Amino acid sequence: MIQAGIYGATGYTGYELIQLLNKHPEVDICFATSQSFAGQTVVAIYPQAPPQPLIAGEDAPLEQADVVFLCLPHAAAAETAVLALNAGCRVIDLSADFRIKDVAVYEKWYKVTHPAPDLIAEAVYGLTEFARDDLRQARLVANPGCYTTTSLLALQPILASQAALNGSIIIDAKSGVSGAGRTPQDNTHFMAVNDNFSPYKIGRSHRHLPEIEAIARTWNADTPDMIFSPHLLPVPRGILANIYVPLAETTTVEALHKLYADAYAGEPFVTVLPLGQLATLAHVAHTNKCVMSLTWAGNMLILTAATDNLLKGASGQAVQNMNVMFGFEETVALI
Amino acid sequence: MIQAGIYGATGYTGYELIQLLNKHPEVDICFATSQSFAGQTVVAIYPQAPPQPLIAGEDAPLEQADVVFLCLPHAAAAETAVLALNAGCRVIDLSADFRIKDVAVYEKWYKVTHPAPDLIAEAVYGLTEFARDDLRQARLVANPGCYTTTSLLALQPILASQAALNGSIIIDAKSGVSGAGRTPQDNTHFMAVNDNFSPYKIGRSHRHLPEIEAIARTWNADTPDMIFSPHLLPVPRGILANIYVPLAETTTVEALHKLYADAYAGEPFVTVLPLGQLATLAHVAHTNKCVMSLTWAGNMLILTAATDNLLKGASGQAVQNMNVMFGFEETVALI
Amino acid sequence: MIQAGIYGATGYTGYELIQLLNKHPEVDICFATSQSFAGQTVVAIYPQAPPQPLIAGEDAPLEQADVVFLCLPHAAAAETAVLALNAGCRVIDLSADFRIKDVAVYEKWYKVTHPAPDLIAEAVYGLTEFARDDLRQARLVANPGCYTTTSLLALQPILASQAALNGSIIIDAKSGVSGAGRTPQDNTHFMAVNDNFSPYKIGRSHRHLPEIEAIARTWNADTPDMIFSPHLLPVPRGILANIYVPLAETTTVEALHKLYADAYAGEPFVTVLPLGQLATLAHVAHTNKCVMSLTWAGNMLILTAATDNLLKGASGQAVQNMNVMFGFEETVALI
Amino acid sequence: MIQAGIYGATGYTGYELIQLLNKHPEVDICFATSQSFAGQTVVAIYPQAPPQPLIAGEDAPLEQADVVFLCLPHAAAAETAVLALNAGCRVIDLSADFRIKDVAVYEKWYKVTHPAPDLIAEAVYGLTEFARDDLRQARLVANPGCYTTTSLLALQPILASQAALNGSIIIDAKSGVSGAGRTPQDNTHFMAVNDNFSPYKIGRSHRHLPEIEAIARTWNADTPDMIFSPHLLPVPRGILANIYVPLAETTTVEALHKLYADAYAGEPFVTVLPLGQLATLAHVAHTNKCVMSLTWAGNMLILTAATDNLLKGASGQAVQNMNVMFGFEETVALI
Repeated sequence: MIQAGIYGATGYTGYELIQLLNKHPEVDICFATSQSFAGQTVVAIYPQAPPQPLIAGEDAPLEQADVVFLCLPHAAAAETAVLALNAGCRVIDLSADFRIKDVAVYEKWYKVTHPAPDLIAEAVYGLTEFARDDLRQARLVANPGCYTTTSLLALQPILASQAALNGSIIIDAKSGVSGAGRTPQDNTHFMAVNDNFSPYKIGRSHRHLPEIEAIARTWNADTPDMIFSPHLLPVPRGILANIYVPLAETTTVEALHKLYADAYAGEPFVTVLPLGQLATLAHVAHTNKCVMSLTWAGNMLILTAATDNLLKGASGQAVQNMNVMFGFEETVALI
Repeated sequence: MIQAGIYGATGYTGYELIQLLNKHPEVDICFATSQSFAGQTVVAIYPQAPPQPLIAGEDAPLEQADVVFLCLPHAAAAETAVLALNAGCRVIDLSADFRIKDVAVYEKWYKVTHPAPDLIAEAVYGLTEFARDDLRQARLVANPGCYTTTSLLALQPILASQAALNGSIIIDAKSGVSGAGRTPQDNTHFMAVNDNFSPYKIGRSHRHLPEIEAIARTWNADTPDMIFSPHLLPVPRGILANIYVPLAETTTVEALHKLYADAYAGEPFVTVLPLGQLATLAHVAHTNKCVMSLTWAGNMLILTAATDNLLKGASGQAVQNMNVMFGFEETVALI
Repeated sequence: MIQAGIYGATGYTGYELIQLLNKHPEVDICFATSQSFAGQTVVAIYPQAPPQPLIAGEDAPLEQADVVFLCLPHAAAAETAVLALNAGCRVIDLSADFRIKDVAVYEKWYKVTHPAPDLIAEAVYGLTEFARDDLRQARLVANPGCYTTTSLLALQPILASQAALNGSIIIDAKSGVSGAGRTPQDNTHFMAVNDNFSPYKIGRSHRHLPEIEAIARTWNADTPDMIFSPHLLPVPRGILANIYVPLAETTTVEALHKLYADAYAGEPFVTVLPLGQLATLAHVAHTNKCVMSLTWAGNMLILTAATDNLLKGASGQAVQNMNVMFGFEETVALI
Repeated sequence: MIQAGIYGATGYTGYELIQLLNKHPEVDICFATSQSFAGQTVVAIYPQAPPQPLIAGEDAPLEQADVVFLCLPHAAAAETAVLALNAGCRVIDLSADFRIKDVAVYEKWYKVTHPAPDLIAEAVYGLTEFARDDLRQARLVANPGCYTTTSLLALQPILASQAALNGSIIIDAKSGVSGAGRTPQDNTHFMAVNDNFSPYKIGRSHRHLPEIEAIARTWNADTPDMIFSPHLLPVPRGILANIYVPLAETTTVEALHKLYADAYAGEPFVTVLPLGQLATLAHVAHTNKCVMSLTWAGNMLILTAATDNLLKGASGQAVQNMNVMFGFEETVALI
């Protein structure tokens, strides 16, 4: 039995963690923090929730925790990571603070001075399927975000195959509203979302793009700059992306499908659909899965990939990473 | 051609007024105010909108206006009404400030001192179908709200018939989200509304209840206290209410239907459905109609009534009242 | 370990049973039937589903089953119940066939000749909280429906208290779309439901009404005829009902709340909210709970009760009943 | 005053035509047909509708009509077009029958023998903004569909500029549910659409693709094969597409924006948003507009274009075409 602490427990990812860890037979939650709701329980925000007490971050008993999850804004997360590591905890950070190895790139996109640049090198990028060996010993895990997880799981096999590309990869991605956070904003008002569909920060202006490109280039160094077009869908949860990969040479869809089926054979949380089927949000909602399908048109490989942004795209993958870090069965609490 | 001013033009009712008045061949908008968006146009909030300029309320050229519409919070509306009346404008107030004749009742429910109690007596209660004679000369119109309009139009014929009641009238009412206003709140976040359905202030605790009871008693002085149960529906617009009227004596549904059909014969905006049909939101969305149906069960008359809360429940009825006040065809800009 | 068969596994309740039983450590699914999809797996209809094979009903190996769940249309369910009982299975019937003890009432409302009237007397009405003793030995359980479960759990304490009523109980109830079944119909088309809200069969015309009244009268024989107003909500799942109970004598809301809190103390799946809170669909979606709240207005007790129509209102309660029947912990697979 | 007939008046496009033509001061509806609802009125399907009578197609008094609108399935539309032209009517066909000039291509994609191939050459392709001269004299207009109109209006300026392309144009398009028709299907059930988002026929398999390519090549003969990825959005109406146009040479977004602003200057129904703004469904719902925005990333031009699929994507453009054909102001009944 291990003890887990959660910082920022009242956002959607924090609440999802509470639910997952409550189902986990090997984990107890030793604390959950919230600045706005300290002294209350999670029920104050989520009527269905278990009565998990909330405390202020500065009151967190770090010495009791084996692992802490950081569901905090960037920069605040890195500051807390330092405290937790110093207290001897292992840390799974759901923010962007340790995802980008180049601190200059991080500081340019996030417009802050990194609070703990010395820790970046050590952080393990927690795309679980490609990080198991490093995760087992990791003190600090940078948990990838939702758009990133979806895109990278879809891209890895074709990039790792070193197939030559003939132009930019385009990621046309659509996210449910929980990705925009729990704080009420004009753009998350029911009246703004319902019956609507909106792109935002399309092209090369969203800050998940440099993260996607950097990891992609660890698999194929020649990957050109990408195009990334995020959108807000009128659904509560889920991400679906079409990823257009222009290949330089002709191949067959069967060969491509075999590449993918082989790459993910045996993976409990990655499903490559049979040819002729297409991934949808209904394949993944409320699951820790990434489901993907392949379409071939001209020399264009179209990858369609879906995840639940709060599970495989955030808290589910965080628990999956914890399971690997502590030697538990990888699927515990996740199926 | 008359000139109309709109105070509070960026809320949902203000924007709806802009759209309606732009379609009206006899009306020009001479100003539209907004405190937060002064200097911009309505497009800043509503991407589909016409480029109506917005000015600060204190810059409004009241001397140009024949009529002003007040889409302001209560108390602020009454203060502005005084200015507008003094400038010689006729005033249609969409707030609650002049709806309740008893100033003590108003002050108890709205928890403010009424800024202009001397004007209350003069204000015409603008439930158009029952106020035409008074409206023609009115300087000041108290435009009824959405729950109230829906409930009162449904109740008027049976109350006016002086049928004896055998218990409390119960209004179980459901409203779309636009009724909760444009300011983002926890309870209007897409994540809080979508896939959900929530009652609020049920019983005898919502401040539209004393207004409904007071008007109802002008039709039947013996109307007992009512029960009113409002709910938030996951839809953008529309109100649907079931109104349970326990009658002391047995009658037939055909007789009741005839009472209603006769009461609203010739009314352009009130439809009594044939027996066997039930009113739904789809009957009224984006229209100025109130559609109602009757069901008879035991000695219980069940009135089901629907309106679009932003049109017949607010801005549509305001324009309908303006049409009567200025001698225009009552349906102009509304069908 | 027991073996369970499911008849009608491709409707919403059948699919929910597959998911629940797959989580149950003491149960194996020995067969699942479908007329339209025999030879395929459940994935053909539900992309997220496990690959449960489907067979034709006539091929079901009844001799292997300890318990069978009937998710079949009425009459077909009773016919299959006979076969299953003859094969020595215990039967949990999710249809209406054995819910109404008076066969004449059943035949009037369901417009069929009952296929197995001799079994009606033996059937245990499976509102679990009030049927545990009978369930333990039951061969045949009539599993209550969604509107009924919600209404009866809310009504039981006040009716059982023998408080005198002063008029008809009114149930104003709203259901998500899954309650209307998986077969595409005009009224379940996205275009008919989205942004809409519709009453149907209100008054005394819905066939769940005689069932509610009959059970209610087992608790208080003087319960007068009720009014029942169902509606279709634009949400996938969940029922929320306001139940208006006019009491003959004045009491306090605290006394009423104590009555309810005591009645359901210790119940794992019934929650009586603290005074001042109101039940919503968000309290119960994807859970086996019934959550209720009390409001007192005049001499009217307003019960607001919510359940997930596919869980506590159907398949969840069916598994809860199975747990009692077979001596498992009552909450297994349900929390 | 002209007389208009509508074939297939009970589908979404037919009903939209009824509403538009009822607002048109120069047009009377002389008949509206429906096979399933002949003898009833449109209210039987749309509760808000005017009481337009419906007759069987074979009873249509063609001799009274100046213009007929065909909202019929393909092939049936062409057969009816022959009858109407022979009766001296002008014809606006909302089906695909006369959109594709190459009858072999049509027959391959639509899997029928074209009933009237001799008429194809004469048909004017009714993308109004680029067809006004031909429309004035047209006897037969092929009204473009929703995906096509949206894509072509966005593509025309860049293609007509003869800018060299450096790869395939990709159209990633998303449509509301009304595009799937009124007949209830598994994929339009509320439970299948709500909270979901689904691609279908992506790549080079949707039959609107050859139409888009053929028209595009009339503007730039060197346009390579395209990729087209349609999706079903959980919204009632509207199409939003991202169109990725890889340019061979570097330019500036300002130059591209000027190209578009100039191309559509003075167009009442095409809006090119200022740089920095992105088109959304909220820009176009319930309007006859196409709203588009430009993003420049690397050498990729990203066009984001939105229309209401039932208006500018179908019946609105049909009325716009009628207005041009009969010399009415082009915007009558459309703003």
